[in-house]
Amino acid sequence: MNHLFKLLCGVVAALALTQVAAAAELRERALGMFSPLPSTFPALKDNVITGEKIELGKALFFDPRMSASGVFSCNSCHNLATGGDDNMETSIGHAWQKGPRNSPTVLNAVFNEAQFWDGRAADLAEQAKGPVQAGVEMANTPANVVATLTSMPQYVAWFEEAFPEEKNPVSFDNFAKAIEAYEATLITPAPFDAWLNGDDGALTGDQLAGLELFMNKGCSACHNGVNLGGNGYFPFGLIEKPGADVLPPDDRGRFAVTKTADDSYVFRASPLRNIDQTAPYFHSGKVWDLKVAVQIMGTSQLGTEINDQQADQIVAFLTALTGKVPEVVYPVLPRETSQTPRPSGELQ
Amino acid sequence: MNHLFKLLCGVVAALALTQVAAAAELRERALGMFSPLPSTFPALKDNVITGEKIELGKALFFDPRMSASGVFSCNSCHNLATGGDDNMETSIGHAWQKGPRNSPTVLNAVFNEAQFWDGRAADLAEQAKGPVQAGVEMANTPANVVATLTSMPQYVAWFEEAFPEEKNPVSFDNFAKAIEAYEATLITPAPFDAWLNGDDGALTGDQLAGLELFMNKGCSACHNGVNLGGNGYFPFGLIEKPGADVLPPDDRGRFAVTKTADDSYVFRASPLRNIDQTAPYFHSGKVWDLKVAVQIMGTSQLGTEINDQQADQIVAFLTALTGKVPEVVYPVLPRETSQTPRPSGELQ
Repeated sequence: MNHLFKLLCGVVAALALTQVAAAAELRERALGMFSPLPSTFPALKDNVITGEKIELGKALFFDPRMSASGVFSCNSCHNLATGGDDNMETSIGHAWQKGPRNSPTVLNAVFNEAQFWDGRAADLAEQAKGPVQAGVEMANTPANVVATLTSMPQYVAWFEEAFPEEKNPVSFDNFAKAIEAYEATLITPAPFDAWLNGDDGALTGDQLAGLELFMNKGCSACHNGVNLGGNGYFPFGLIEKPGADVLPPDDRGRFAVTKTADDSYVFRASPLRNIDQTAPYFHSGKVWDLKVAVQIMGTSQLGTEINDQQADQIVAFLTALTGKVPEVVYPVLPRETSQTPRPSGELQ
Repeated sequence: MNHLFKLLCGVVAALALTQVAAAAELRERALGMFSPLPSTFPALKDNVITGEKIELGKALFFDPRMSASGVFSCNSCHNLATGGDDNMETSIGHAWQKGPRNSPTVLNAVFNEAQFWDGRAADLAEQAKGPVQAGVEMANTPANVVATLTSMPQYVAWFEEAFPEEKNPVSFDNFAKAIEAYEATLITPAPFDAWLNGDDGALTGDQLAGLELFMNKGCSACHNGVNLGGNGYFPFGLIEKPGADVLPPDDRGRFAVTKTADDSYVFRASPLRNIDQTAPYFHSGKVWDLKVAVQIMGTSQLGTEINDQQADQIVAFLTALTGKVPEVVYPVLPRETSQTPRPSGELQ
């Protein structure tokens, strides 16, 4: 009995060592492809992040008066209460027009190498200027934004505090910079970060199996880096084009930016953090089920069938990318004055 | 010199005493007409306020999925960032329709004796059911609201916690009760409350002069109580009807509720707390300047011309009604599931 007991102990210990070694190996492999979120805000190009700038940016982000109609703020389509997006196929904007593409999440967007589905904005400051002016979104003009801000003494004071060295702090450029600074704080550490950082208990067995599949099947060829995507461009339908509902023929993606035939139906690989909070999926927003989206990716991008069990495990892994949204105190905004341009909901 | 000095001291002392007496008299008179906000939430009829109910109500208040389109939450038209209203003439709602009347502030609304411009809802729970179903506002149905809530396990758990004794906690009635409980916390103590409570320094000289005018001119005949209004019905244009832009002939106010000829163009006296944050004014929302609104009230309701200086002082007093909005931590809402009804922006 004594011998048998020793033998059993030895087997158990060996198995445990093997498991530890396997976990260490999986983590090492994963760290070669993915990075955990940093513990501090990233530095921005030409835009020093200060507390004053963050607070101003938060006010602007939540202010519906930045739209011509007074209905939409940045937060309308990038709602911090619902995963940083709006849970619609494509957003509803000015005069009830429908936007052309699904609204991407603002959470962790600062870590994307470029913004928008086609990467046409280099950074969040450039991005912030887009929807404000888009006729189907906020339908405003830079001049009207500046006039609106200048009409409210509290905003002028906040701009002076956020841009203390500048002669004319209230500008459309600084509006965008303040929003960029605020958005850089919207970082959501997730169980996957804890696991990458060494916490073996942060992921379940199914999530670990999903991670292995995610790497072995080739998902991580496009969805890698700190945001598991957002850092490269790939044709949607690399192996097999999905149906016209999912990939509408009239939206050729990055082709509109580069005018290069090679970029036809090329899109930025979606960043996958908080993906289970941001249905529906793809630029068309036509797929509501994450599992279905995973399986479509298998056939269209990898030329492989992802079976039900595998898809469930990959989805389990993807839920480990859902992080903690930073606590946001809802702002109290400056009051209008007689100089404030009136809201206009008219179709322009 | 000694005598003169004594005399002067006596005069100064007498003047000071007279001022103190005048201040005490003014406060006593004011307390006969107005009440300071209480330091605790008011009790609600058939709706015990608990922390769980408040938190649930806050989530519902901010959740755009309570509207058919997924665009509008309670907070869209009663925005806590902008005085508890939306700063529009009349709100823009479902399918870009315009609402018939200016959106009133939700702040301190719990102290109104009835809700809406025509008082057609007895309390905030009844009120909360209105806009959700109104075709021009959120265009939803009670059945769809309940289906939406039931589809999200986190909401079901929150309802169970907020209504622990009930067999079917997820109901349209409880949806409204939770919102009512949350709204009962939206109370904004203002300098005028501090002054009513005995702080002589809380109001400026102009504000005190404005308060006296407000009482002497007769404004307080309708605008009295804790909310300086919200507790009685009066014909708009009692003495002289304002122009058709301000008082559109096709909106006969409380007549639609009571079908009594006497109630033609009768409206609930506007509660005046935070009034300088909630332009534009009147049920038509046609007047953007508070001073102009004060002067219109003089001619239409009191038959008296309120001159520029008087109007400025009354406006100064009204700004002393602007209070501190309670700190609101923006909620993180439950995620949808495959059972969640899809948003629909179609015109019904």
